[in-house]
Amino acid sequence: MAKDTKTRRPRAETPKGFRDYFGADVTERKAMLDRIAAVYHRYGFDPLETSAVETLDALGKYLPDVDRPNAGVFGWQEEDGDWLALRYDLTAPLARVAAQYRNDLPMPYRRYAMGPVWRNEKPGPGRFRQFYQCDADTVGAASVAADAEICAMLADALEAVGIERGDYIVRVNNRKVLNGVMEVAGILDPADPGKHEHERGIVLRAIDKLDRLGEEGVRALLGEGRKDESGDFTKGAGLSDEQAEVVMGFVSASKAVDKRLVDTLAAYPSQPPAIVRHIQAVQDAGNDHARRKLALPIEAMEARNRVTTKYLKDLVGSSVIGADGVDELEAISNLLQAQGYSPDRIVIDPSVVRGLGYYTGPVFEAELTFEILDEKGRPRQFGSVAGGGRYDGLVERFTGQKVPATGVSIGVDRLLAALRARGRAGQTMQGPVIVTVMDRDRMADYQVMVGELRAAGIRAEVYLGNPRNFGNQLKYADRRGSPVAIIQGGDEAARDVVQIKDLVLGAKIAERASLEEWKSQPAQFEAPRAELVAQVKRLLAQNGD
Amino acid sequence: MAKDTKTRRPRAETPKGFRDYFGADVTERKAMLDRIAAVYHRYGFDPLETSAVETLDALGKYLPDVDRPNAGVFGWQEEDGDWLALRYDLTAPLARVAAQYRNDLPMPYRRYAMGPVWRNEKPGPGRFRQFYQCDADTVGAASVAADAEICAMLADALEAVGIERGDYIVRVNNRKVLNGVMEVAGILDPADPGKHEHERGIVLRAIDKLDRLGEEGVRALLGEGRKDESGDFTKGAGLSDEQAEVVMGFVSASKAVDKRLVDTLAAYPSQPPAIVRHIQAVQDAGNDHARRKLALPIEAMEARNRVTTKYLKDLVGSSVIGADGVDELEAISNLLQAQGYSPDRIVIDPSVVRGLGYYTGPVFEAELTFEILDEKGRPRQFGSVAGGGRYDGLVERFTGQKVPATGVSIGVDRLLAALRARGRAGQTMQGPVIVTVMDRDRMADYQVMVGELRAAGIRAEVYLGNPRNFGNQLKYADRRGSPVAIIQGGDEAARDVVQIKDLVLGAKIAERASLEEWKSQPAQFEAPRAELVAQVKRLLAQNGD
Repeated sequence: MAKDTKTRRPRAETPKGFRDYFGADVTERKAMLDRIAAVYHRYGFDPLETSAVETLDALGKYLPDVDRPNAGVFGWQEEDGDWLALRYDLTAPLARVAAQYRNDLPMPYRRYAMGPVWRNEKPGPGRFRQFYQCDADTVGAASVAADAEICAMLADALEAVGIERGDYIVRVNNRKVLNGVMEVAGILDPADPGKHEHERGIVLRAIDKLDRLGEEGVRALLGEGRKDESGDFTKGAGLSDEQAEVVMGFVSASKAVDKRLVDTLAAYPSQPPAIVRHIQAVQDAGNDHARRKLALPIEAMEARNRVTTKYLKDLVGSSVIGADGVDELEAISNLLQAQGYSPDRIVIDPSVVRGLGYYTGPVFEAELTFEILDEKGRPRQFGSVAGGGRYDGLVERFTGQKVPATGVSIGVDRLLAALRARGRAGQTMQGPVIVTVMDRDRMADYQVMVGELRAAGIRAEVYLGNPRNFGNQLKYADRRGSPVAIIQGGDEAARDVVQIKDLVLGAKIAERASLEEWKSQPAQFEAPRAELVAQVKRLLAQNGD
Repeated sequence: MAKDTKTRRPRAETPKGFRDYFGADVTERKAMLDRIAAVYHRYGFDPLETSAVETLDALGKYLPDVDRPNAGVFGWQEEDGDWLALRYDLTAPLARVAAQYRNDLPMPYRRYAMGPVWRNEKPGPGRFRQFYQCDADTVGAASVAADAEICAMLADALEAVGIERGDYIVRVNNRKVLNGVMEVAGILDPADPGKHEHERGIVLRAIDKLDRLGEEGVRALLGEGRKDESGDFTKGAGLSDEQAEVVMGFVSASKAVDKRLVDTLAAYPSQPPAIVRHIQAVQDAGNDHARRKLALPIEAMEARNRVTTKYLKDLVGSSVIGADGVDELEAISNLLQAQGYSPDRIVIDPSVVRGLGYYTGPVFEAELTFEILDEKGRPRQFGSVAGGGRYDGLVERFTGQKVPATGVSIGVDRLLAALRARGRAGQTMQGPVIVTVMDRDRMADYQVMVGELRAAGIRAEVYLGNPRNFGNQLKYADRRGSPVAIIQGGDEAARDVVQIKDLVLGAKIAERASLEEWKSQPAQFEAPRAELVAQVKRLLAQNGD
């Protein structure tokens, strides 16, 4: 095993872009995922765990003209010539499974999956090449009831892990509405779907960049094109001003809806003035983030939903697919409201643009609306923690048959970071009770003590390092975050007692005090050996364990 | 995404040697691992989760003369020239972590790890290239108290997942005893450790094959060599008959101990005759498996432990390291007995030979002693589910410093198979209550029903496939293992009632009956809509949910 030791030692390093998770990092994530899984289970979703490895072919990143087709994924060639790769998400394996077992799976197939995925990307600060995803999808259900259910389940999952109502919003948009808008703009012809494909591609990519480029940047890309700060020019879709205006009507729909809402309310002055003021404030707010942050009363959100669908209906005009998209949004909204998911939790919002290029129907995004401080100490909204939508191409790649599917993916690391920011990261790791070793020959006695503590459900261990330096034992207890240390030297053993030390109180002193000083601390007391378990239990309860 | 659809479709296949886990496969494994983790936690072990990917260098399988060094592991070369690979066990990453964070980790460092590992081996029946391991190790503790603790924890873990006392045995041996035997046999010179290394290598490999080759085969490999059934000749260690005899004294120690035990008992006839009969039966049994299977009373096992250490002491003669090894076994035995782990659960047993070549001190193996039927219907012992031991080279490869470490690895899939064989695989997946869709326009009503059921903690879902064919809805419920189906057509809605169908009773009929027949089954009854949750709850409780 160690034959090269003398000549050359390997470096003990996590590979670049990967990381190790210790202690509470593992248990907090697990506790969060367990709570999410319980919600998914209650909704009738079954777990699926595929292997980390797929054929590159099944992952769908195969580029026939590239010798080494692992751009974006970690791939390698087998001796038989096949290429294998690590999955880059949980959707591609689901697609493979849905096709492979299509005759055996219950249909619709509701499944959830949790696990790591791998991306062969340049690592950077906060950018890792292995990270967790947590997905839930329904395959084979064409009804928007399936989309509504995913949204409701997402809201339930967020609340189950500790995100309070009011701290999140699930926003719903629909790709079909954008298709309707593109039809109205004259770049989508239902009778000839291939026509204008190039222009639509540019439009979709432009809209997807709304957050980064702003409305002005998107408009430039709809027209002739855009020069970025570095001077690089990106060619635009070449739409006329009128055409671009139609698309921008979709891009800026949320603002327009707010304006309409205020106008509507002005026309019906019997509305509660608080709502009018709220909406006015929302409209006045200069940017999207500030706008989203302002919480509206439910009545106002319901009114806003109605105004939004009306606005979108106007926008898509006579487009059949567009009208269909708006109807779906209304249906989702009605289903959710019937179940008590008011628009303060799940709301129709045309400003959701992420993923519109990928999804084929409803699109959802969960945002956390509370503020955290960014690296520079400025307050900002926490932002997106989950996204999803409906996609038709899932199984089609394999079987040639369209299979409707809808689902959501939760960004596990981001959600965990959010819980930590809110002080709700679940169980913290309680350090073990440490039974110190005063007399090496009496190891069996110490082991019996921890045995009794463990049998009572108390986390406990004997110090197993070299016991000679007692200070090291205390440092170890400190490092482990031990709440209690047990000491029994020869004197105590002769009198059949133990010393019990409350380390929650004594931790700071312990590091520099001598054994004698340390033993004299008031947080330490003597108890009969027979009372060991009862006394430790009492102490842990006191410390709020 | 689907640009190649027409020309070429990818095959929907799990890569060779990999597999997918569905539903209960996932939850049963998780329930088992959760129980094990709870035991590890109580023992003061902290979780560690490293990434799946390590540098090939850190894994220690790098062969400088091989261009593509991924024999045994899945590896690939990065653009910067580095080789990365998937971990093949959980010990190599622990070694890397222990070296990398040596100044930050508490020492001793107790950690557990659970997760998949990957082996680039030829797949075969029951041989997979990704499988789970579940390890616990203590790094930095030289005391055999750490080894004893691992054994006790292993016993506790097995009982925690549902292996009953008497259905398992943890057997402990010690590499140092074998070293002592080799010293006596004249192939280990403590003053010149490099001498006879070649012979010792052959001896170690021969002993490791005891289960497969039997005593005769091992003896041949200790001497001139052995011709196998295919006619291939394996050169032996070239020991003289006297030397080989010494080594065989170790290999067949268990049988010799049984014989001694009978002799001892014969000399002290006051022993309970039941014990004498037991031991006689054990000795008479023709092979190891049968011998191990026969459960001895605790008193006999304790006597056996004492006889074993005495026998080993005689065997290692004046060898210092050999005597040290026997002392360690005695110390482990005493520590465990003091804590109530009698030799009916953890026993000294020189017939444990697996891993003696790898480990440097105590070696443990957990065997399940109940019988299952093999592929051919013959009863056989379930066999090994966990193994481990003490190893010194762990961190040394990286830092040059010896760091003592001891640990155990549980074979997750095998243990889960054992639980299933014993009918104790933990929670089975309860299928969801299915609310059927009789009237597509009343989807919101059905969603409200499942919402109420879920709020009461009941797993429930609306049928989301095409509702037109009611038979399909029932087939779906059947496939999901649903305990209850809810039906509310227009008639029921008008009367504000629901039909509640006990599918546990009705499942078999459901598949071929018409809606009318199906509704007439006695397992179906009508209830007021307001009683939906209460009635379903009652039914589930009745069915023993």
